Amino acid sequence: MSHAFAGIYTPLVTPFTDTGSLDTRALASNVDHFVSTSLTGLVVLGSNGEAVFLDEDESDLAIGTVRERLPNGRPLIAGTGRESTRGTIAASKRAATLGADAVMVRTPSFFKAQMVTDIFVRHYTEVADASPVPVLLYNVAMFTGVNIAPEAVDALSQHPNIVGLKESGTDTVLMGDYLTRAKAGFTILAGSPMTMYASFALGAHGAVLALAGLVPELCVDLWNHVKAGRHADARDLQRQLVPLARSIGQLNGIGALKAAYDLIGLVGGVPRAPLRPVGSSVVDTLRTHLSALAVLDKQLAR
Amino acid sequence: MSHAFAGIYTPLVTPFTDTGSLDTRALASNVDHFVSTSLTGLVVLGSNGEAVFLDEDESDLAIGTVRERLPNGRPLIAGTGRESTRGTIAASKRAATLGADAVMVRTPSFFKAQMVTDIFVRHYTEVADASPVPVLLYNVAMFTGVNIAPEAVDALSQHPNIVGLKESGTDTVLMGDYLTRAKAGFTILAGSPMTMYASFALGAHGAVLALAGLVPELCVDLWNHVKAGRHADARDLQRQLVPLARSIGQLNGIGALKAAYDLIGLVGGVPRAPLRPVGSSVVDTLRTHLSALAVLDKQLAR
Amino acid sequence: MSHAFAGIYTPLVTPFTDTGSLDTRALASNVDHFVSTSLTGLVVLGSNGEAVFLDEDESDLAIGTVRERLPNGRPLIAGTGRESTRGTIAASKRAATLGADAVMVRTPSFFKAQMVTDIFVRHYTEVADASPVPVLLYNVAMFTGVNIAPEAVDALSQHPNIVGLKESGTDTVLMGDYLTRAKAGFTILAGSPMTMYASFALGAHGAVLALAGLVPELCVDLWNHVKAGRHADARDLQRQLVPLARSIGQLNGIGALKAAYDLIGLVGGVPRAPLRPVGSSVVDTLRTHLSALAVLDKQLAR
Amino acid sequence: MSHAFAGIYTPLVTPFTDTGSLDTRALASNVDHFVSTSLTGLVVLGSNGEAVFLDEDESDLAIGTVRERLPNGRPLIAGTGRESTRGTIAASKRAATLGADAVMVRTPSFFKAQMVTDIFVRHYTEVADASPVPVLLYNVAMFTGVNIAPEAVDALSQHPNIVGLKESGTDTVLMGDYLTRAKAGFTILAGSPMTMYASFALGAHGAVLALAGLVPELCVDLWNHVKAGRHADARDLQRQLVPLARSIGQLNGIGALKAAYDLIGLVGGVPRAPLRPVGSSVVDTLRTHLSALAVLDKQLAR
Repeated sequence: MSHAFAGIYTPLVTPFTDTGSLDTRALASNVDHFVSTSLTGLVVLGSNGEAVFLDEDESDLAIGTVRERLPNGRPLIAGTGRESTRGTIAASKRAATLGADAVMVRTPSFFKAQMVTDIFVRHYTEVADASPVPVLLYNVAMFTGVNIAPEAVDALSQHPNIVGLKESGTDTVLMGDYLTRAKAGFTILAGSPMTMYASFALGAHGAVLALAGLVPELCVDLWNHVKAGRHADARDLQRQLVPLARSIGQLNGIGALKAAYDLIGLVGGVPRAPLRPVGSSVVDTLRTHLSALAVLDKQLAR
Repeated sequence: MSHAFAGIYTPLVTPFTDTGSLDTRALASNVDHFVSTSLTGLVVLGSNGEAVFLDEDESDLAIGTVRERLPNGRPLIAGTGRESTRGTIAASKRAATLGADAVMVRTPSFFKAQMVTDIFVRHYTEVADASPVPVLLYNVAMFTGVNIAPEAVDALSQHPNIVGLKESGTDTVLMGDYLTRAKAGFTILAGSPMTMYASFALGAHGAVLALAGLVPELCVDLWNHVKAGRHADARDLQRQLVPLARSIGQLNGIGALKAAYDLIGLVGGVPRAPLRPVGSSVVDTLRTHLSALAVLDKQLAR
Repeated sequence: MSHAFAGIYTPLVTPFTDTGSLDTRALASNVDHFVSTSLTGLVVLGSNGEAVFLDEDESDLAIGTVRERLPNGRPLIAGTGRESTRGTIAASKRAATLGADAVMVRTPSFFKAQMVTDIFVRHYTEVADASPVPVLLYNVAMFTGVNIAPEAVDALSQHPNIVGLKESGTDTVLMGDYLTRAKAGFTILAGSPMTMYASFALGAHGAVLALAGLVPELCVDLWNHVKAGRHADARDLQRQLVPLARSIGQLNGIGALKAAYDLIGLVGGVPRAPLRPVGSSVVDTLRTHLSALAVLDKQLAR
Repeated sequence: MSHAFAGIYTPLVTPFTDTGSLDTRALASNVDHFVSTSLTGLVVLGSNGEAVFLDEDESDLAIGTVRERLPNGRPLIAGTGRESTRGTIAASKRAATLGADAVMVRTPSFFKAQMVTDIFVRHYTEVADASPVPVLLYNVAMFTGVNIAPEAVDALSQHPNIVGLKESGTDTVLMGDYLTRAKAGFTILAGSPMTMYASFALGAHGAVLALAGLVPELCVDLWNHVKAGRHADARDLQRQLVPLARSIGQLNGIGALKAAYDLIGLVGGVPRAPLRPVGSSVVDTLRTHLSALAVLDKQLAR
């Protein structure tokens, strides 16, 4: 069974200029780098892309900039989730026009108590009906405080224009339920580097990982290990990746991810306020963890 | 000690037309109604105003519409919180230009793990430095999943352009800490109808309550009871208000509040998708609770 | 309406000898001290009495020791909650035989998902049917992770041998619901010093407070202020008590409470393992907060 | 590297007679059944054994009863965790005398805020120093509300008499951290049937599963699949086991597990109050899920 958008992706960070506006040159140069890796494709305007900090014009500019540098054979997935259904539809249509191959739509979440299955089914159905390109659901409870239930995913996986889901948490029971309940052919992508191996072992069809922006070849290796049945190798690699994964994770946030970009020769820079750059001790930790992996990942070792 | 913006406010709902656009006529007519009540002033673009569903143009239109009908002596507070500091500053400047007397700035919250005291102090300081009108902090953990700490409020209450805070939760320990830690003269407004009396007893300087859109005179009565030392009366009234407060609360959400507007002759209508109107059983419950209070509140009894 | 067991109580700590066994002499001497205060009565084998660390023989010994020193006119409430209904009944019968005037029965809680209203109603009904002395429900979610719902309290308040409830948390909405739902004459006691004033303002009929072991007269004063309508005085006193209340609260635990006993001339000593005595910095904090209150509380000032 | 107590275990339920006392005959007959299965050994007085409902005499009787029927070559692990260190030591010594091969010691948990790494390290060290038989740590946050941190496990795994840990939750990140941090040779057993395959894939050394009381051969098969590198088979089997696992899980509790025992010809009966037997609809669900697996498990098919 073929799964659309299966594979390993990284969500791009969004660089800013000294005056705080979108730095399209830096964004483009990061894309150029990733084109040379084994990554399947790229995600623009994900959580790690600080999508919530960009206005609508900046969002469009980011998508267009990435598409211009990313060859058409390499999938570009654009984050277009907004709190309102109409805002999400508008953003999805624009993203399609700008060349996105699919849109990844974060669950609305502000009114948490109301975000139940019926609401999600209706929201995503309306978005998928209107979107010119395929829709990926995007569940990220660490930021939203809500989860889309497996029964909602079951129902939505029947929609011809909803092709998959990115699950960003570490709850492998939820991951297993998504995998069991969704229609055959529906793509489930893992979003947490902490449970990357566990998710692949359970049958996930790939991943969208900030970590893959730093060690793309290792993430692809881990994925290939599992596909080839080399579970011991995959598990060992997972353990080696955990320290770096943790250091760019929730505790340190996007400031750390951007600092790590800078350390490996990409352009990270500082996040938008109210986020702040990380301090030097975090940078030192990142350097240590990156060095420990440098001999392993051919991109890092260049 | 005088407290700026002390008193009882209601956050306006945002009515939409049949085609889903902002219904400025309906909004204006609701404002006209509230002008005739004992409410101190109004809040536009609060959580109950579905601010997260409006685009920037709609936000501006809502503020302008309300200001046009609300006499200058009656304070207009506009919600201008955005996830980014720059977005919040831009919205606050526009709100001031449109006639808002103060801006109420919800905590940024998407990157929850990073939303700590240092970040909040810097964010609000930059917003307050730039805002032409006074700033009220706005803590609403039920929607944001984060809390601004009492020590952050302590620090921020020293800023000459930060005049108060709205605390929307029911945690009276947190409310007490805010009251104890903030600078003298700093205004603390309660946001939950469930702890209205408790908050007033603890020393809060007023409230911003969706409930006050339905029974404005009763909310003002409760406030006056406490100011005059009539605690038994206040407590009794609190108990009478709880059923209605609960029925427009988190469980049923804005759909219920809008249905209640319709029931009392204001314009509520349906919320924006993905939110949905409430079903008939909720409407029946609302009618029951409103009827039970109608003989008490002169506005309702008209 | 008279409320059985209304008033201000303190839960006794349980002193141990150097070899770790129950120190009945020290327990008795603490009781002798409290007899001279304005406290209504005493609670033995509460959470702060380390009841979960005592075996059945020690539990009985503690009750008997306290009863021997506490005059019959002063109510003695004994904690007798166990996970099983049969264990709770057995402990309650023994406590009654040993002279307890009432038993305070903590919610069972190990199997949290099953601890719903039906289960609680059946459990407490069976306990109350069998207990020779009146039963007080005891809700303490900070330790148990479960809450008894207001509808369960409503039902149980009808039982002739269930006379009240101690609510140990700081959720004043829950406190308000208990007060509203329970039968007239049912006694609700507050258990958190952080919301003592708020609970009294809402109509609670007294409190069981570890804090009252340290500043009994101040706790009784606060209670009397509210009964006499002196809300401003009560609120001011509440604010003065918060620092000490917090320092013996959840963060530092029973080790801090026992250290504070030692500081004021009672016998505290060390808690049972796995708990540990607090360090000197906590002791210094306790000393500071106790000193700040010493001029206020006549017991402390002796 | 050999791991003590590696393998697949089931925790025995504790049957009661009609008058509510421990039913040693039924317990013995259940043990006789399990001796004929491929299970590695048995756990007596686990959470599913309603250990928290038994008094000390009953606890001892249960251990002795099981040991009498379980051949010495088959490991018997006895739950001996109490809230106090001294109670835990006493129970562990008695269990050893009664023939337990190891003790499994649940984290103390009543005073949650104090249950930090230092406390756990001291508690388990003292228990292990005193216990005549090896100690297994037992982390079960769904019941206790606390977690033992990976750094505590790291430290404790150095103790010569602490040989392993049972982790009962579904957090595979925590499981991975335990596996990475513990000393080589330290045994980690999974306790959740929902993450059995994921735990084995990550390197766990076996499991203690209530589910293995119902379908012992399937649980052993799954374990053998992973050991032999048959990951696809293991994953498929995991998915087949999920419905039954869920129906005896947290939602329905021990009443459901005991009903399932009855359905397959073992002796379950009713749990102790306050727990209640499950209703007929749960029994029907159990029967359906058991039937679906009966052709697979040779024990069930007999």
